Amino acid sequence: MFKSAASVERLANRLARLPGIGRKSAARLAFHILKLSKDEAFELADTIREVKEKVGFCSTCFNISETDPCDTCSDPKRQHNVICVVEETSDAAAIDKAEGFSGLFHVLGGRLSPLDGIGPDDLKIKELLDRVKGGRVEELIIATNPNVEGEATAIYLSKLLKPMGLKVTRIARGLPVGSDLEFADSVTLTRALEGRQEL
Amino acid sequence: MFKSAASVERLANRLARLPGIGRKSAARLAFHILKLSKDEAFELADTIREVKEKVGFCSTCFNISETDPCDTCSDPKRQHNVICVVEETSDAAAIDKAEGFSGLFHVLGGRLSPLDGIGPDDLKIKELLDRVKGGRVEELIIATNPNVEGEATAIYLSKLLKPMGLKVTRIARGLPVGSDLEFADSVTLTRALEGRQEL
Repeated sequence: MFKSAASVERLANRLARLPGIGRKSAARLAFHILKLSKDEAFELADTIREVKEKVGFCSTCFNISETDPCDTCSDPKRQHNVICVVEETSDAAAIDKAEGFSGLFHVLGGRLSPLDGIGPDDLKIKELLDRVKGGRVEELIIATNPNVEGEATAIYLSKLLKPMGLKVTRIARGLPVGSDLEFADSVTLTRALEGRQEL
Repeated sequence: MFKSAASVERLANRLARLPGIGRKSAARLAFHILKLSKDEAFELADTIREVKEKVGFCSTCFNISETDPCDTCSDPKRQHNVICVVEETSDAAAIDKAEGFSGLFHVLGGRLSPLDGIGPDDLKIKELLDRVKGGRVEELIIATNPNVEGEATAIYLSKLLKPMGLKVTRIARGLPVGSDLEFADSVTLTRALEGRQEL
């Protein structure tokens, strides 16, 4: 596209490989980066390098971290007897942002998906069992996604963990706050009715 | 959002400053970059640096280029007596990609927009006049965008250039190929009728 500047073309090609960025957005972004000040552009480049150089995984919860154990796992102010099990780092981040949870996390690194060839051994399930066996954990909140694969993962985990004598819970599925009952799908409504609570 | 990894947070913040990328996309991109192999991530970082280090502007046509004059301006196979005037580099790239033009370009670097405080002195108009005065140019195709500001820029340029005795043309505005007459807006239809050509 930018015949006269091969490096801009190259940048656009690289950007187009990122998720959700098509050929046209990539060209627009490349062009924007070209217009940035040298400092700003270099800062962006350096932060990309930095992320790959500094960030690893916490060996306890498998969340991304610059330290091991991560800040969450080593924070004495958090409840160390409650673990929230999520699929990905971004899920942990979302829960952490919402108020109401001050326990620890366990990032599985995906969900069970036989069609994609992802079985229990591909997730950090063994590591979760080891954590639970450590004995300090009292409640395990399963917060995998409320879709087919997330539910299957939740059921698999609960079958594995309940016999170990700890409380295993699942985050509630129901109507999202601010939504319209009229437009909710029937599966969500069924879940919302099932999960009804006394006022 | 990624409390445990400050550099990921920083990267997400930088990415969120790019056009068309909101907070959530930025977080998703940052997370994707984290998952890339070290080589791929470093390649992306290096290409961003390279673009800023290598790419400048052609002092003749003001298109982006790694050389001065750019490949287009110094290509003897192109028609050096026809200049296509565009607002931005990306416009020149779009025209170059479409077939049917083998002349040179002139990138104005924007369009006249009094509301944004952009006047003739902020664009490469003086430089265009100097190029035309050079004497080799026979036709000037004004390809600014077909919106209010682009049209105003086109009219301004034609008033300035016509007295210099060269052919000044404007790219056709009409129905886009593959579109539906029924859904075309009335201004476009008016233009399409005005610009009708004998078969």
